[in-house]
Amino acid sequence: MRASPVVTLTTDFGAGSPYVAAMKAALWAVSPRARVIDLSHQIPGQDLRFAAAFLEGALSTFAAGPIHVVVVDPGVGSDRAVLYVEVGHRRLLVPDNGVWTLLERGGTPRVIRLSNPCFWRQPVSATFHGRDIFAPVAAWLSLGLRPDTLGPPVSDWVRLKFPDPTARPDEISGEVVFVDPFGNLITNISREHLSALGDAPLFVSAGPHERIRLVRTYADAPPGEVIALISSGDRLEIAVNQGSAAARLQAGLGTFVRIRTDR
Amino acid sequence: MRASPVVTLTTDFGAGSPYVAAMKAALWAVSPRARVIDLSHQIPGQDLRFAAAFLEGALSTFAAGPIHVVVVDPGVGSDRAVLYVEVGHRRLLVPDNGVWTLLERGGTPRVIRLSNPCFWRQPVSATFHGRDIFAPVAAWLSLGLRPDTLGPPVSDWVRLKFPDPTARPDEISGEVVFVDPFGNLITNISREHLSALGDAPLFVSAGPHERIRLVRTYADAPPGEVIALISSGDRLEIAVNQGSAAARLQAGLGTFVRIRTDR
Amino acid sequence: MRASPVVTLTTDFGAGSPYVAAMKAALWAVSPRARVIDLSHQIPGQDLRFAAAFLEGALSTFAAGPIHVVVVDPGVGSDRAVLYVEVGHRRLLVPDNGVWTLLERGGTPRVIRLSNPCFWRQPVSATFHGRDIFAPVAAWLSLGLRPDTLGPPVSDWVRLKFPDPTARPDEISGEVVFVDPFGNLITNISREHLSALGDAPLFVSAGPHERIRLVRTYADAPPGEVIALISSGDRLEIAVNQGSAAARLQAGLGTFVRIRTDR
Repeated sequence: MRASPVVTLTTDFGAGSPYVAAMKAALWAVSPRARVIDLSHQIPGQDLRFAAAFLEGALSTFAAGPIHVVVVDPGVGSDRAVLYVEVGHRRLLVPDNGVWTLLERGGTPRVIRLSNPCFWRQPVSATFHGRDIFAPVAAWLSLGLRPDTLGPPVSDWVRLKFPDPTARPDEISGEVVFVDPFGNLITNISREHLSALGDAPLFVSAGPHERIRLVRTYADAPPGEVIALISSGDRLEIAVNQGSAAARLQAGLGTFVRIRTDR
Repeated sequence: MRASPVVTLTTDFGAGSPYVAAMKAALWAVSPRARVIDLSHQIPGQDLRFAAAFLEGALSTFAAGPIHVVVVDPGVGSDRAVLYVEVGHRRLLVPDNGVWTLLERGGTPRVIRLSNPCFWRQPVSATFHGRDIFAPVAAWLSLGLRPDTLGPPVSDWVRLKFPDPTARPDEISGEVVFVDPFGNLITNISREHLSALGDAPLFVSAGPHERIRLVRTYADAPPGEVIALISSGDRLEIAVNQGSAAARLQAGLGTFVRIRTDR
Repeated sequence: MRASPVVTLTTDFGAGSPYVAAMKAALWAVSPRARVIDLSHQIPGQDLRFAAAFLEGALSTFAAGPIHVVVVDPGVGSDRAVLYVEVGHRRLLVPDNGVWTLLERGGTPRVIRLSNPCFWRQPVSATFHGRDIFAPVAAWLSLGLRPDTLGPPVSDWVRLKFPDPTARPDEISGEVVFVDPFGNLITNISREHLSALGDAPLFVSAGPHERIRLVRTYADAPPGEVIALISSGDRLEIAVNQGSAAARLQAGLGTFVRIRTDR
């Protein structure tokens, strides 16, 4: 296993939290040369579904190498496991609560349950495994530690349930699964779903809002028009050029979205 | 051209945005050793004037070396150009929307229009050039790529219009152009403007608030007094010691500010 | 003195502030290879007590090495001193306003008053010593500069007053001194205080809320129950499993907390 000096952090600790500082300190205590990158500390508190959707988007562009540490962990201190996961070319440390469910599509995962306390900070607190387990283990991995040293392989883990879109020959129904900071509404309908509808003109509705035009990019519509497009993550996205679709449509997570051929 | 491993990022993506993570990932995919520095991801959405004022302040202290990447880009996906700019000792990648107008005073710029897709991430999306063009090109530049490889030089570009102060022998009128996080009001009146008024005592007004004292630093006034001083960026600044001038004066961008000799 | 390339920053400048960017630029102007780590830029404006409690938590995990720079500095431009402090294995640059008071328990400090302008950025502004003094001095220290080059040792400095808990054989009274981003209430009652109460069952009250159970970790209580536990920083903490104790109890800084044996 190659050594990699990059460790990314995704937590719900809040920007500027002293807990983030403590995690970084625990990491450097093991590996002073590790490069630590904040992906987000603003996951809404203990919101596993948001975290899962965030990770799907945020990690999609990363090449192989980094250790991605995710501490959104309502079960800290209980008997929930901490997992090392390799899936596709990605490597993660996650609580066993399903936060990586959307990444599982990337290939057959290799999963290890952390059980070897040699690589943990001692004493391990009951309330802050981010500092005492995740951070030092990530540091050891970044130094090149073999993952099988961490604990036994496991073949069962917690999965989050996410709604799948329903497809008919002339219509696909799905829902909003992520709202980005611009108020763009990202759905669970993928580019592949759309391709299956063929070459007929397509029309989109979101909640009660009908006949939304499908365009290539924001600038293809006048400011203020509600539009649909394929997002940079290859999902159907509802947007408003130079505005917020979430505010304009009063829409958010779970809003019903349908796309159909114009027949 | 010297190689530099530092790339700075300024965007309106919001702190903790998955889009920031994706940009960094695209950068490291080209240059795993690049050091990436967040300047701000909290530029108000698509606010080019705020971004321009932010850059003027934030970049004023930087020595030569870094590639400064700015993605405040309401025109993404349209035919607006992406520019490589050298001005003074600074190097930037910006959308051609005027966001760097206030830096143009630093010298005669060298400007290149990006047209060589060899250095872009493929496929280039219609909605996220930050990830697909800006980030990989910045990475290549940080590795030492010659800028003239990126595209042809251009001599024309978009400029934002900013209000200039008006000067008379005994009076200068200007306005607030930036409000900092403490609520200090930064104006477009510079230290040089003030010097032109000579050695007479000077009095400042901001909106309806008259006869504001000009002092050297915050601590020269009792807590709560409205004061004027020369900012750390050499601009006339309206402040309240241990308070917010924006809140106290109900003032903000565009508030009229006048300084005159006491005759 | 060993050279260390890590410098941490703690300020009240606000996330995404141009002043943070300017400090980093001033640092790299001296030491282009310094690694700069943001601990927090979201200390509430000029709130020295919050900053002191933040530092106690955030720095507790750091090993020796980094230079910790703290710029929460209502007295900038006055004659307040800037101090270099070594206490325990920690090294800090702080305004002489007591912001490091809670770290003083870590050992007998060595304190130097910065007076040598050779290591300052010139000209030194009256309003931004973070950029003009703290940042360049931190950079020089990170390159290995001997601290005694900075100025003379001093034996007197400003201290903040913090409330101490009062202990009786069967009862300890204290108060909330920090509210973390989850709404957990951290008190000034330590694990050692609790040990002094012996093995009897212990009951906790916070404000008017009585008979709070003392548990080991959040997951030991059903969601929504108000609980007390020992925090990851070894303090008595009032929490709500999967909720905010601050919101639930309408409590905050200064809320009275008492722990007593159940006799």
